[in-house]
Amino acid sequence: METPTNVTIKGILGMLMANLDYENKKRVISLGMGDPTAFSCFTTTSVAEDAVVDALHSQKFNGYSPTVGLPQTRKAISDYLSINLPYKLSPDDVYITAGCTQAIEVAISILAGPNANILVPRPGFPIYELCAAFRNVEIRHYDLQPENNWEVDIDSIDSLADQNTMAIVIINPGNPCGNVYSYQHLKKIVETAKKHKIVVIADEVYGHLAFGQNPFVPMGVFGSMVPVLTLGSLSKRWIVPGWRLGWFVTTDPNGMFKNAKTVERLKKYFDICGGPATFIQAAVPRILKETSDTFFTRTLDILRHSSDLCIKKIKDIPCLTCPTKPQGSMAMMVKLNVSLLKDINDDVDFCFKLAKQESVILLPGLTVGLKNWVRITFAAEPSLLEEALERIKSFSHSHSYDTNGSHFDS
Amino acid sequence: METPTNVTIKGILGMLMANLDYENKKRVISLGMGDPTAFSCFTTTSVAEDAVVDALHSQKFNGYSPTVGLPQTRKAISDYLSINLPYKLSPDDVYITAGCTQAIEVAISILAGPNANILVPRPGFPIYELCAAFRNVEIRHYDLQPENNWEVDIDSIDSLADQNTMAIVIINPGNPCGNVYSYQHLKKIVETAKKHKIVVIADEVYGHLAFGQNPFVPMGVFGSMVPVLTLGSLSKRWIVPGWRLGWFVTTDPNGMFKNAKTVERLKKYFDICGGPATFIQAAVPRILKETSDTFFTRTLDILRHSSDLCIKKIKDIPCLTCPTKPQGSMAMMVKLNVSLLKDINDDVDFCFKLAKQESVILLPGLTVGLKNWVRITFAAEPSLLEEALERIKSFSHSHSYDTNGSHFDS
Repeated sequence: METPTNVTIKGILGMLMANLDYENKKRVISLGMGDPTAFSCFTTTSVAEDAVVDALHSQKFNGYSPTVGLPQTRKAISDYLSINLPYKLSPDDVYITAGCTQAIEVAISILAGPNANILVPRPGFPIYELCAAFRNVEIRHYDLQPENNWEVDIDSIDSLADQNTMAIVIINPGNPCGNVYSYQHLKKIVETAKKHKIVVIADEVYGHLAFGQNPFVPMGVFGSMVPVLTLGSLSKRWIVPGWRLGWFVTTDPNGMFKNAKTVERLKKYFDICGGPATFIQAAVPRILKETSDTFFTRTLDILRHSSDLCIKKIKDIPCLTCPTKPQGSMAMMVKLNVSLLKDINDDVDFCFKLAKQESVILLPGLTVGLKNWVRITFAAEPSLLEEALERIKSFSHSHSYDTNGSHFDS
Repeated sequence: METPTNVTIKGILGMLMANLDYENKKRVISLGMGDPTAFSCFTTTSVAEDAVVDALHSQKFNGYSPTVGLPQTRKAISDYLSINLPYKLSPDDVYITAGCTQAIEVAISILAGPNANILVPRPGFPIYELCAAFRNVEIRHYDLQPENNWEVDIDSIDSLADQNTMAIVIINPGNPCGNVYSYQHLKKIVETAKKHKIVVIADEVYGHLAFGQNPFVPMGVFGSMVPVLTLGSLSKRWIVPGWRLGWFVTTDPNGMFKNAKTVERLKKYFDICGGPATFIQAAVPRILKETSDTFFTRTLDILRHSSDLCIKKIKDIPCLTCPTKPQGSMAMMVKLNVSLLKDINDDVDFCFKLAKQESVILLPGLTVGLKNWVRITFAAEPSLLEEALERIKSFSHSHSYDTNGSHFDS
């Protein structure tokens, strides 16, 4: 097996961290990774923590669970997701995974086959590409439109899809763009998927993290029109990415994933996966039932505030522009105009020099498919976010051509 | 992708459970699965439970870990394994997995390639076959010899291995046979692997669970002779299979797995795996350091006692024989002589009728590759084990030809 050549987010962030200059004595501020737990304002609810501790102390959940998940956990998640659907999911539709990462791996592996291809967004989430490379699935990129709320370029789907296209991946609310798609836009996507007879992989790991104009609409709403695989987890909404509690759900009330042979294949695939800890699974029913709206609202308030802060501060940095205000998730894409900078070649160069000079970590857009953009994770302590953006401003200023037109002289 | 046709242990146990006759009012005793947590005499140590709770309460481990595992966890496991090796492992040799199942999946996926085959024991552990089927790796079975302490038939290796053979899987202490191989036998296996230039996958999920004549010798002892991948977990020794905390370790001090490209491929592969919860990983250093020998000794004493009990009771059941006394792990293989039974066709029939009539679950040998054998998991409450074996005796008696030679009349 050849090693995929994909750049990974963790790989490049590791290199950026290694490039820090600890002699400049500035506190390192990382806005590079989608893990809010690094910031004290993002702490999970005690409801969740207590439920896990109690499940562990009960000593009833130290043994194996069924590989598809504990029955009560599958039931709780099917109920939770059904609240927002026009039909009722069955516990059998839900498969418990070790975080959303494993749900992605299962989705791609189960759809793999000779010459298979899947459509993924650009910019997107690199794990899809890495996973497809390991499973010999071809990746085809469709574009998200920065000037149009990062909506899917529907026409490009028609030119990309062929008889070997198995699925289209839709990440909503979106990482890295912060998009939250309207019902109408999702419907258009589904109609296109239906026309091409392809499955929709709905990556909703940021499900419900919508704080802007559009409410979060789960793709499963359209499950009767086209088979939808919904991927999700506790990670983001409950701020516990390290708990590795995710789900792979066939939101497909009358479709292909109800077929007995497909179900058998899925079940067997789960037999070779190591799922999440049984006692964490056992805590899920209580977590889903008892978490207060106050907890969710508080998270959304912080995210709204911190994304607003980003937008405001970025307006003061000439080389950075944000074409679309984020409406959800924890990240946004910002366009970098290197022609305003005298000694910065591209986004990667920008991020490496920024790390060294200012101890601020941003993710180069190249990693998510867009050269000369950067991804900013705004799920951070507001005071640190402000400090980071001040440093980015100062960094940009120090690398800018002076205002007397030396741009043209150098 | 075709669905593998493999029979799974969980699949067949599910069918056996569905075949129980609840009207016979007998308490169900399952000796079918390798999960001792169902029996109250097998409880993990409070050291382990406290370490996990404290890690969770610290709120420092709710975020992502590196996909290869937390540095302190890798360090603790490399130290733990190094105690029994003639060289010192580095933390970089250790990759943390969601149980030993995921370690198996990684080992097979990373060695997969066009026309690749691997050698697995018969009887063996069906997850290897299922995983190989999903990764398009050919399985070739070598035989374990029941009359010879279930040792590997070394000559058969020579006839099975070719230039496409990537690895040989050795399960020691062994499931389903209860074998614990001597240093000399392991050395012979390694010499054969070296001759054929193949990797040894050392499945040591039952590591240290040796209660008979031979001490447990980790395969990594021979890592300088041939590349060894050591797979293990907390599951069995700490009696917490549901915690999903395993490891994939390159015990290969000067071999192929030190190669920078191989390490890069492994790291990328771990980026698509969902590993175990960060807070459980964080508890590992304390668990490995503070668990008392008393806890381990107690487990071994129970296993020795319960396996002895099995051997003794089986001697009273004419249709069952155990050619080799188990020396380790939690299971043993017992030969079924159907010619002594008037209305039992084979091991599957035996197990289904036994479940229905006596509410005792055993695993048909067919599931692990040996027709007309059964696997008995002896990691059970001794009183229940005794009761189960009494019921098996009574069942066997009721299905035997009478002693007046009706065997020849029917």
